[in-house]
Amino acid sequence: MRFSPNSKTALEAKVQLVLGSRILANEGVLDGFGHISIRNPENPKTFLQSRSISADIVTVDDIIELDFEGNIVSAPEGARAYWENVLHARIFVARPDVNSVFHGHPAEIIPFSCAPQMKLLPVKNSGGVFYNGYGFYSSPEGSDMTVCTTEEADNVARALGDKWAVLMRNHGVTAAAGNVAEMCIDMIAMVQNAAVYLECLKAGITPVYCTEEEGKAYRASHHKESPLTRSWEYYVRRAKRVMDDIADL
Amino acid sequence: MRFSPNSKTALEAKVQLVLGSRILANEGVLDGFGHISIRNPENPKTFLQSRSISADIVTVDDIIELDFEGNIVSAPEGARAYWENVLHARIFVARPDVNSVFHGHPAEIIPFSCAPQMKLLPVKNSGGVFYNGYGFYSSPEGSDMTVCTTEEADNVARALGDKWAVLMRNHGVTAAAGNVAEMCIDMIAMVQNAAVYLECLKAGITPVYCTEEEGKAYRASHHKESPLTRSWEYYVRRAKRVMDDIADL
Amino acid sequence: MRFSPNSKTALEAKVQLVLGSRILANEGVLDGFGHISIRNPENPKTFLQSRSISADIVTVDDIIELDFEGNIVSAPEGARAYWENVLHARIFVARPDVNSVFHGHPAEIIPFSCAPQMKLLPVKNSGGVFYNGYGFYSSPEGSDMTVCTTEEADNVARALGDKWAVLMRNHGVTAAAGNVAEMCIDMIAMVQNAAVYLECLKAGITPVYCTEEEGKAYRASHHKESPLTRSWEYYVRRAKRVMDDIADL
Amino acid sequence: MRFSPNSKTALEAKVQLVLGSRILANEGVLDGFGHISIRNPENPKTFLQSRSISADIVTVDDIIELDFEGNIVSAPEGARAYWENVLHARIFVARPDVNSVFHGHPAEIIPFSCAPQMKLLPVKNSGGVFYNGYGFYSSPEGSDMTVCTTEEADNVARALGDKWAVLMRNHGVTAAAGNVAEMCIDMIAMVQNAAVYLECLKAGITPVYCTEEEGKAYRASHHKESPLTRSWEYYVRRAKRVMDDIADL
Repeated sequence: MRFSPNSKTALEAKVQLVLGSRILANEGVLDGFGHISIRNPENPKTFLQSRSISADIVTVDDIIELDFEGNIVSAPEGARAYWENVLHARIFVARPDVNSVFHGHPAEIIPFSCAPQMKLLPVKNSGGVFYNGYGFYSSPEGSDMTVCTTEEADNVARALGDKWAVLMRNHGVTAAAGNVAEMCIDMIAMVQNAAVYLECLKAGITPVYCTEEEGKAYRASHHKESPLTRSWEYYVRRAKRVMDDIADL
Repeated sequence: MRFSPNSKTALEAKVQLVLGSRILANEGVLDGFGHISIRNPENPKTFLQSRSISADIVTVDDIIELDFEGNIVSAPEGARAYWENVLHARIFVARPDVNSVFHGHPAEIIPFSCAPQMKLLPVKNSGGVFYNGYGFYSSPEGSDMTVCTTEEADNVARALGDKWAVLMRNHGVTAAAGNVAEMCIDMIAMVQNAAVYLECLKAGITPVYCTEEEGKAYRASHHKESPLTRSWEYYVRRAKRVMDDIADL
Repeated sequence: MRFSPNSKTALEAKVQLVLGSRILANEGVLDGFGHISIRNPENPKTFLQSRSISADIVTVDDIIELDFEGNIVSAPEGARAYWENVLHARIFVARPDVNSVFHGHPAEIIPFSCAPQMKLLPVKNSGGVFYNGYGFYSSPEGSDMTVCTTEEADNVARALGDKWAVLMRNHGVTAAAGNVAEMCIDMIAMVQNAAVYLECLKAGITPVYCTEEEGKAYRASHHKESPLTRSWEYYVRRAKRVMDDIADL
Repeated sequence: MRFSPNSKTALEAKVQLVLGSRILANEGVLDGFGHISIRNPENPKTFLQSRSISADIVTVDDIIELDFEGNIVSAPEGARAYWENVLHARIFVARPDVNSVFHGHPAEIIPFSCAPQMKLLPVKNSGGVFYNGYGFYSSPEGSDMTVCTTEEADNVARALGDKWAVLMRNHGVTAAAGNVAEMCIDMIAMVQNAAVYLECLKAGITPVYCTEEEGKAYRASHHKESPLTRSWEYYVRRAKRVMDDIADL
């Protein structure tokens, strides 16, 4: 199946979910608990996501269909949805421009999720894809911080607003993108930018930041089909080198 | 053998010890000298632990049976126990609620083991499983810091108290858990939390911490059988990818 | 084909480009978007470079020939050049002593590319190969920072001057060398030196620096054929361990 | 061949050199240029070392015999010695208690080699094996810092004195040990201790240090045959997992 960032069929969307899950697991962006999702190109009222397993082993057969309240519409027998599937559902509701959602806990992002007063600013031009900054969401005090109700998920969506990602206190990050490929590339860029910015902070280096205009320009040029495909294929290749079972995807 | 966090037979317990040893070696939590143990589900007066070899090669046939003074009860011919097996023995005596003990020297933990004045606080919600903090134990001055006598091991157990882990000066950490799976997941979480907290300290970021209530909530929800099994299987899979000889476990 | 740092034929030059690309990808110096080039030993008016693909998969068949305005002279059907090929072209024009050019975005270098006031000084003797310092180039404000016009590329070449590398604001680094082997070894040394220097800055260690004379001495002794060949073969070997498809090169 | 830390024959010594080289390459302690050596158990006037190749590929057939002026006594045809072989030769002369010498450039050590005012103190008990501190040697100003003359090598030996390692300005470290196994284990411990100490410095943590007495105790207990063999076999196993060609050693 030739890669197109915009999947036209549910099967294409499922393959993208599988490859996106594997990419983000392989690059260390997703751990055993994070997950991604995509709108169902064949039904505007549902979205697709793996059943509740770790991203590094998701296959096409694990993908289930959910509605925007987080209810399972169709699934293999016995399949359960992720605890936090409503996080995806409610962002799809709030953001018609978004086709793919990410939720995870990359180590490089957590320091910023612990410190609302810190701005995770772009020091690497690729980090400029988040040109309008990050939302910040704090779970109700005393909870385990998983987002399992539609009310809470709506609050996360509100904290996201018109941005591309929202940091979650002591927990992680939820992000939104135009398609699965953008979402993967953007998240890898966010993690890399956070790592470099932490280096600057640690080394006492006062950096020059990319401007919002520069970030927008980078986002525009690198979300075009040609560089996006090259990035996607690069990361798919890296994942396939260590994951034999997706050789044919 | 289907995984259950609570082993009913000695064989199940041995398999858990093998997989737990491999997980912690593979994730870099155990080096060539650390070790784990489990109560013998078939004899309340003994516990099980590998003979004195590195965690990355422990097999079912290496497991020996010890009493709570650290004496070998049954073992393959010629097998020797770890120098510090009493550390495990005396914690089992002091803590009837504990079924699995860990002792190791993860690099991320040592900075805190060198600095009793530092609090290793939870910045990542998973780090909140150690919600009531850490004990601190300092070996008698001038020793090589290995804990080889029951008297010293009793002192470590006292320093542990009702907590889930005790830092050991310039040496490492000893931890306790309800079963082997919890012990592995908790130790990986401790190391990850320490790494993120070090990042905050290094970057001059003043973090918000998880509260004790939030830590308790996380511990309660993530020690349930379903998420625990998912984590366990995730880490077993990662270990099996690089350790051919445990493919059938 | 026995390795000689100075390729005499276009085929030799292509093999060096392939191995150099693989080395730098394998050592983490090149990511999915960076690239290297070499003068065409068979035509003084052209240079050789891969078509627009990631460095980790470049093969002899991907190499195209370009003139010093960045126009394709010969190429496989349908092959496109890198966006920033003019960066290479204009440095070849400005620097007759240079036979190989590098452009990339190593994470260890970015903190210094964000901070013109910081000097990336040599704390490791191998870092002394950049004994006369680094140029600094800042893209026009508001751009996405890719260098796609000959005018801009000429400005980068001017910022490079008689040095061996030029840092690019919030973007990366472009470097020049006498041949592909020197270029690879020098870039790995630059990244390693930056990493150690960052460690000093982070740890509050005030280091002694290598003097310019010491750097020149190191450059002279380690660019000789014997140590250069040993380094080259060391890095080729490391790349071949993970990249089966270049076993025969 | 069953492992004994004290080799009785030249062949045993050669096998230890091969395995020691592979261990240190595999653990990232030796790069493409570092090297180790051992006294010739069959001739008190010579020592053994690889010909001038990188540590990751040394085989028994590469080992050459040198005298204490650094002259080749016996070698395969065409074999050249390392530039810095006199460094080994002159330490064997100065230190009759030493049977194995190391010279390399681990990244974790360089920050301390750049800062004579910093003390690389033991924060990890295993780092206490260097209980009497480190010597410091500064190459003559303006050189490339390689040590190629007996006069300079004698100066390094003087800077080493009765210690177990000497830091070399902007360059690396040379170390001495009772046998190859001790040398490998000690160097890995030095690197790990430096890494943890750097973490403390970076995080602003004021550590408690191991006392000299504690370091001596650790050295005494962990250089005994049983723990030394366990460590050696642990690191040999790790090297063999990635280096097929030493499976039979």
